[in-house]
Amino acid sequence: MNQIQRLFDIDPWKITTKTLDKQNRRLQESLTSTGNGYMGMRGNFEEQYSGDHHLGTYLAGVWYPDKTRVGWWKNGYPDYFGKVINAINFLKLNITVNGTTIDLATIPHEDFHLELDMQTGILTRRFTIKLTDATVRFNFERFLSIVKKELAVLKVTAEVITGAAEITIDSSLDSNVRNEDSNYDELFWEEKDSGTQDNGTYLTVQTIPNNFGIERFSVTALMQHNQQALETTPAPLAISESFSYEAKAGETIDFEKRIIVLTSRDVPEETQVKKASELMSTYSESFDVLKDEQVAAWKKRWELADVAINGDLAAQQGIRFNLFQLFSTYYGDDERLNIGPKGFTGEKYGGATYWDTEAYAVPLYLALAEPKVTKNLLKYRHNQLPEAHINAQKQGLAGALYPMVTFTGIECHNEWEITFEEIHRNGSIAYAIYNYTNYTGDETYLQKEGLEVLTEIARFWADRVHFSKRQQKYMIHGVTGPNEYENNINNNWYTNMLAAWVLKYTLENYRRFEDVATVSIPQSEQEQWEDIYHNMYLPVDEELGIFVQHDTFLDKDLIPVTDLNPADLPLNQHWSWDKILRSCFIKQADVLQGIYYFSDEFTLEEKQKNFNFYEPMTVHESSLSASIHAILAAELGMEEKALEMYERTARLDLDNYNNDTEDGLHITSMTGSWLAIVQGFAQMKTSHETLSFAPFLPSKWDSYAFHINYRGRLLAVTVEKETVTLKLVTGDTINVTLYDENYELADEITVAMKD
Amino acid sequence: MNQIQRLFDIDPWKITTKTLDKQNRRLQESLTSTGNGYMGMRGNFEEQYSGDHHLGTYLAGVWYPDKTRVGWWKNGYPDYFGKVINAINFLKLNITVNGTTIDLATIPHEDFHLELDMQTGILTRRFTIKLTDATVRFNFERFLSIVKKELAVLKVTAEVITGAAEITIDSSLDSNVRNEDSNYDELFWEEKDSGTQDNGTYLTVQTIPNNFGIERFSVTALMQHNQQALETTPAPLAISESFSYEAKAGETIDFEKRIIVLTSRDVPEETQVKKASELMSTYSESFDVLKDEQVAAWKKRWELADVAINGDLAAQQGIRFNLFQLFSTYYGDDERLNIGPKGFTGEKYGGATYWDTEAYAVPLYLALAEPKVTKNLLKYRHNQLPEAHINAQKQGLAGALYPMVTFTGIECHNEWEITFEEIHRNGSIAYAIYNYTNYTGDETYLQKEGLEVLTEIARFWADRVHFSKRQQKYMIHGVTGPNEYENNINNNWYTNMLAAWVLKYTLENYRRFEDVATVSIPQSEQEQWEDIYHNMYLPVDEELGIFVQHDTFLDKDLIPVTDLNPADLPLNQHWSWDKILRSCFIKQADVLQGIYYFSDEFTLEEKQKNFNFYEPMTVHESSLSASIHAILAAELGMEEKALEMYERTARLDLDNYNNDTEDGLHITSMTGSWLAIVQGFAQMKTSHETLSFAPFLPSKWDSYAFHINYRGRLLAVTVEKETVTLKLVTGDTINVTLYDENYELADEITVAMKD
Repeated sequence: MNQIQRLFDIDPWKITTKTLDKQNRRLQESLTSTGNGYMGMRGNFEEQYSGDHHLGTYLAGVWYPDKTRVGWWKNGYPDYFGKVINAINFLKLNITVNGTTIDLATIPHEDFHLELDMQTGILTRRFTIKLTDATVRFNFERFLSIVKKELAVLKVTAEVITGAAEITIDSSLDSNVRNEDSNYDELFWEEKDSGTQDNGTYLTVQTIPNNFGIERFSVTALMQHNQQALETTPAPLAISESFSYEAKAGETIDFEKRIIVLTSRDVPEETQVKKASELMSTYSESFDVLKDEQVAAWKKRWELADVAINGDLAAQQGIRFNLFQLFSTYYGDDERLNIGPKGFTGEKYGGATYWDTEAYAVPLYLALAEPKVTKNLLKYRHNQLPEAHINAQKQGLAGALYPMVTFTGIECHNEWEITFEEIHRNGSIAYAIYNYTNYTGDETYLQKEGLEVLTEIARFWADRVHFSKRQQKYMIHGVTGPNEYENNINNNWYTNMLAAWVLKYTLENYRRFEDVATVSIPQSEQEQWEDIYHNMYLPVDEELGIFVQHDTFLDKDLIPVTDLNPADLPLNQHWSWDKILRSCFIKQADVLQGIYYFSDEFTLEEKQKNFNFYEPMTVHESSLSASIHAILAAELGMEEKALEMYERTARLDLDNYNNDTEDGLHITSMTGSWLAIVQGFAQMKTSHETLSFAPFLPSKWDSYAFHINYRGRLLAVTVEKETVTLKLVTGDTINVTLYDENYELADEITVAMKD
Repeated sequence: MNQIQRLFDIDPWKITTKTLDKQNRRLQESLTSTGNGYMGMRGNFEEQYSGDHHLGTYLAGVWYPDKTRVGWWKNGYPDYFGKVINAINFLKLNITVNGTTIDLATIPHEDFHLELDMQTGILTRRFTIKLTDATVRFNFERFLSIVKKELAVLKVTAEVITGAAEITIDSSLDSNVRNEDSNYDELFWEEKDSGTQDNGTYLTVQTIPNNFGIERFSVTALMQHNQQALETTPAPLAISESFSYEAKAGETIDFEKRIIVLTSRDVPEETQVKKASELMSTYSESFDVLKDEQVAAWKKRWELADVAINGDLAAQQGIRFNLFQLFSTYYGDDERLNIGPKGFTGEKYGGATYWDTEAYAVPLYLALAEPKVTKNLLKYRHNQLPEAHINAQKQGLAGALYPMVTFTGIECHNEWEITFEEIHRNGSIAYAIYNYTNYTGDETYLQKEGLEVLTEIARFWADRVHFSKRQQKYMIHGVTGPNEYENNINNNWYTNMLAAWVLKYTLENYRRFEDVATVSIPQSEQEQWEDIYHNMYLPVDEELGIFVQHDTFLDKDLIPVTDLNPADLPLNQHWSWDKILRSCFIKQADVLQGIYYFSDEFTLEEKQKNFNFYEPMTVHESSLSASIHAILAAELGMEEKALEMYERTARLDLDNYNNDTEDGLHITSMTGSWLAIVQGFAQMKTSHETLSFAPFLPSKWDSYAFHINYRGRLLAVTVEKETVTLKLVTGDTINVTLYDENYELADEITVAMKD
């Protein structure tokens, strides 16, 4: 089995440790990442650190089209691999004490303490250094304001315990930063300007030119300190200010740095310095006032979103960590943005938009944010419809193909087996429209923009299928399903099923809203779609009573994961790619993803048979896997399996379960633990205009409780050993179903827990 | 249909044109490439040419491991893509006339004439330039000696027709050359030394360091001219000598440059200059003497190898061009070398070794060279057995996997669908051992080295199969067959059949030669192999009477190529990769390749049904396709199709049929036209210890004739309108079968042509 690697203490609200783990510094950095939706960074130290680590600061929507090459180019390959790029390191300090540079990799220290407070988004750190002539205790505190998104605040205190110390601090804005995943080791930045004006010292940089017509981004960072610098020193792509202090035992020096960061996404380069200066003036509150604002703002988020678990601190910490990091990445403020799989915590997957958003994030944001947040995520795709047309055209197909990886809507990943074949993603874009409409009851989006998107996705599918004369069925050959441990397969049940559903759902709603719709679907096209969805080939095995993952899956050597040598897990780190591909082992829910999407269309027996068949062959090596299995296992009464899956999704990063968290956090899959509790343990369902629950409580838990927004109401759900309580916190009376009984919820209902 | 693009005149022995085609200069360069097995170059001009072209000089076995990156690395991917690198441009001249630089891209000229004489391997060119003050006729003549492999010779004459001319020539050795396919735009050379000594001026360069432990190659070029230089000028990675002449109308200047090229493959760097100097002294014959040697040596090659076709000059030119270029690339002199798919004519495919050698080149070299040449090709693989083990281990498999692309035996291509999946190549390595043994009757190689290779290949297959419980058959999932327009398919008939054959053939011969064999195959392993080859799953369709290309091929939308829009051809230049993959269209013989290999195991009816089914869906976009189809079509009496296929293979490059000859010639597939005539039209077969023929003559031809070596004899075969003549040129009397009649051939037999 995969090894657990737990660097931080178990704590309900904190990510904290007293160990500087030099061997796993990257992992520590990932887990102490902070962000405010606008910008974010890994938990790097401000001062010099010469040990292995990964310096990373990222700005939402600021990316670069890194040119790629493959062995043999094929027609239709995208030209570039877009990536969110490592941006100005604006926290950077260089600190010396009596001439010795503070570098925890090399100098002795004690009392190390590192703490990320998830309740407030504040990262603190302290340590004491003992030199021959002085003992100094350092304390660092920093946050990215979620109230004033352009603002980062950092406070350092240095308390001299013994002796006397001359302390110098060089404080920099430094854009000499590279992406570790740069294909050509290029530095993606060039300097535009730097200098000092009334409100501080600034650096303006711009992304280097590219050959793909992609916008170049300019970024200005302006820093201000709580005292005048002795000197300001420009350097290529950087600028720094120096400070010097003398202190005796018992004295403390206070150093404060605040930074305004602006990008050309919001402010044109030529006015960035001016605007940054204005903001620096405006945001003139004291550190403590800014901090109080931050605390209050996070408190408000948590009041709505917190899931309180009693009786299992590890589980409690897990879900809060996930919600914290998810909201640090995206809180729906900017409809031009989406949710990158690594957020601001790393480089792998390039910070781009994936189908993860629609499949895994939308359900959470529907319940934990205003409907407009989800609508913004839908609009993001609607805005990119012209580019989705281009993607389809490049494949010689009609309609719209939403990309696997994108910033602009244009596909920017170039492994053909993903880009060209993992087209099921197009179905999830459509499904999210259904999900939004079904959850909110708001049909206005569906009628216009929604149908525009749906129609073009449907046209793609109608062109992508072919008719097999031999089988007299429509088929979809050459796809990769959600299980990326196979590819170029034929008739992936999930893809075929989803494609047929898109055609049917689009046509039904077109006919409902034809009068107001902004699209037109000719009669002949409607008939073609009907023919396709009535005659879509959906592989089943009657004997086993299962939907078949794809045409030849059952010819494989079918063995359970438990028969594998545990040393071989995770497979993707031990087996060659071809061996993985031809094995039966499944990376993430595939057939089961389809059963999850359309839960009410399958019988419990069908669910059970498919779960029993596929789950034992599933290695859950995608961070997106465990949640779907937790939900289904919960519905099937497999409480132990459900809890195992919950723990895996909730603590995936905290326990470094897939041995890759050092690269960054699995942001989009962080919704999984919430889904596992709300859609899994509590069995919340919303289909057929009905809100229903059928909760169970994992036996080792004492209780859990959460809130959801639903059609204008705020509901609180509390699940305890003996009882389940639903409370209408705000909004009108509503009908709910609890364990298949209907109730009118006006205030609060408590019923006995059912097995 | 594909467009024909014919730049050169039809001529039985010459590649010649009077047009400098600036739009297609690269294509002209490819088609006028020359080589002597040791080195070679594209048909670049010696003097400056500023128009679009591709400068390329290549030295056999001198390569570089170019580091590669792919989007997402997978376990087992090779670290580098090896490529033969563009080497010192040693022919380089810069010529001025009265101060004007001669550059045919820019200055007016007339009487342009370019000619590659395939009878002699001599490339000549002439043109006349008219300046205001002089008219000068230039004549260039050059060749790479096939007698003195390290020697290149170049002669330029400039005849002043009118006026007076001051002519200057700068003659260089220039290693500032880059591969166009370099992944990181790197210059692969660094300078070691340059200077002048008794026998000329030299440049020594070395390949830059690499991180893969691959040998760095040093190369020295030494040039000598027919007069003393005015000046010698070193430059980074280059050195040049300058000459100046004055001539009046009626006078001619003669300029001669000869170059010795040595590499560290043969001579250590520290003695290269000395050795080059010695060779320059030794090779002191006059230009005309060296040329006579060259002419004589090529004459000898042609006496054995020529295929004379009467009645079809285009066909005649095609076969000669192919044989000429093939022998320019490889004539079996060096067992460390193999036959790169582009020879010395371009960069694509990196000059590495592919299975093309065993599948397509071995049969030709068996017939047109001494047995030791083919044995050298076999030994090349035997020498690389340890590396083939490593390739298999990287995939987690037993035995040996010969690489798809290699220099050292280690796989150095990194597209998983090729590297990991196109494993049928392993079968062809085995097949070549059978082919050699069967053709020559020499079993000594098979008994020892042959069985070592066979056993390890068999072990690979025995581990690579899996047993499908459902079908109670052994299967091979996740492969790419010879048809690379599909990949990651299951149960490719060709691969499964070949794997089963390897197991059977290895076991049979192990049992025959167990006493002398250097390998040991335990009884249990023998039984396992038997079980596998008796129970290998071989997809067939009884109704259609065909072998099925792979499991789900028949579910495709099966349409003939003739139904395609001709503008879509070649597909690989017009369709996206995914569209190609899921289409029914076949790149090259796949099922038919298996039928070709084991021709005597299939009935004519089986051959006909499979040909009729697959050929109409075959786009022949691999240069390796047409020959196999020509052979089968000939056997099936489909004369028109056979001739169409012959013409396609014979003139593939001359007519730029696949619109990619500008990248270089399709060297390994050049055997195809010979195979089409000898194994196709003449139906030469050698199985079951019997040499047999059943020739037909394409109706538009008057006759064709060729020689073959066979078991110590040299035979001449002449096929005319009414008769077929077999002549024993040298060697003992031999039994041959002609149109199913047995003859004892002591001198000459002539029989009537059969329909």
